[in-house]
Amino acid sequence: MTFQLPDGIAVLERTPAAFRALLGGLPDQWIDGNEGPNTFSPFDNLGHLIHGERTDWIPRARIILAQAASRRFEPYDRFAQVREGQGKRLADLLDEFAVLRARNLVTLRSWNLSDRELALEGEHPEFGPVTLRQLLATWVAHDLGHVAQTSRVMAKQYRDAVGPWRAYLPVLDR
Amino acid sequence: MTFQLPDGIAVLERTPAAFRALLGGLPDQWIDGNEGPNTFSPFDNLGHLIHGERTDWIPRARIILAQAASRRFEPYDRFAQVREGQGKRLADLLDEFAVLRARNLVTLRSWNLSDRELALEGEHPEFGPVTLRQLLATWVAHDLGHVAQTSRVMAKQYRDAVGPWRAYLPVLDR
Repeated sequence: MTFQLPDGIAVLERTPAAFRALLGGLPDQWIDGNEGPNTFSPFDNLGHLIHGERTDWIPRARIILAQAASRRFEPYDRFAQVREGQGKRLADLLDEFAVLRARNLVTLRSWNLSDRELALEGEHPEFGPVTLRQLLATWVAHDLGHVAQTSRVMAKQYRDAVGPWRAYLPVLDR
Repeated sequence: MTFQLPDGIAVLERTPAAFRALLGGLPDQWIDGNEGPNTFSPFDNLGHLIHGERTDWIPRARIILAQAASRRFEPYDRFAQVREGQGKRLADLLDEFAVLRARNLVTLRSWNLSDRELALEGEHPEFGPVTLRQLLATWVAHDLGHVAQTSRVMAKQYRDAVGPWRAYLPVLDR
């Protein structure tokens, strides 16, 4: 698929509800289990998405749209949620993510982006020039990657419990 | 985690709503995209879960609980949904899955399974002896694996659209 704004927004607007449906009200051991040291639990995945709403997607899109002399993005802190999530409950994070995402989609829609604007470039600190279109496609794929990661991490909590079926469940060994 | 019935049910009862939140009302290209020949689209994933509700989990649990002379399971048809899904719409599958799952959880809860019953064995056509506890843990992990697969398949539709960010999105190359 090429990136088309309405298709991308269709996914972005569903992600908070998908996390709520998957995780809301679950026993803590599902929410806090991870894949080992320095890996994300479902709670961490959600915190990471919240951090992205605040610091990554829309702020980077603004840098691109401004087309100022410097279009270099701030590096993204992949472990900010460890700090920011402390003392919060899952229900808080679900609400916070839903509010921030809804607000960011209001902003995105208000821009009425043209093909010309989607082709504008910013400067990624590692990759160099990237387009607004690529940034927005990444926002979508990043959401879906964290839905996949969250459900994979949960599945792995039963890696031993499934006994011999582990051979038929590749998700348990990814 | 060891398998505990209430924890397992907590996941099983959320899966239909998770699929609905993730897929309900999305443009067709998200629903029908796959990872290449003989791989599952999001539509196929849902059809596969429906087939499991009809033929796999509860029927196999019944075979175990009956403890008859033959406790051998029927082999599972991993591609039945290709046949059964023809002519159906996504909205039909979302409803069908929700109804079948709810019905199966009524059955599961009605059994009030004891530890002794969870330790009873059936015969898997390939693995040999497996316990009811392992079967139920597999039901849960299988659900989560298909949530992960569905979102991974969707993410991959933007493998090219994300440009250089592909290097940071391992989900696109799994």
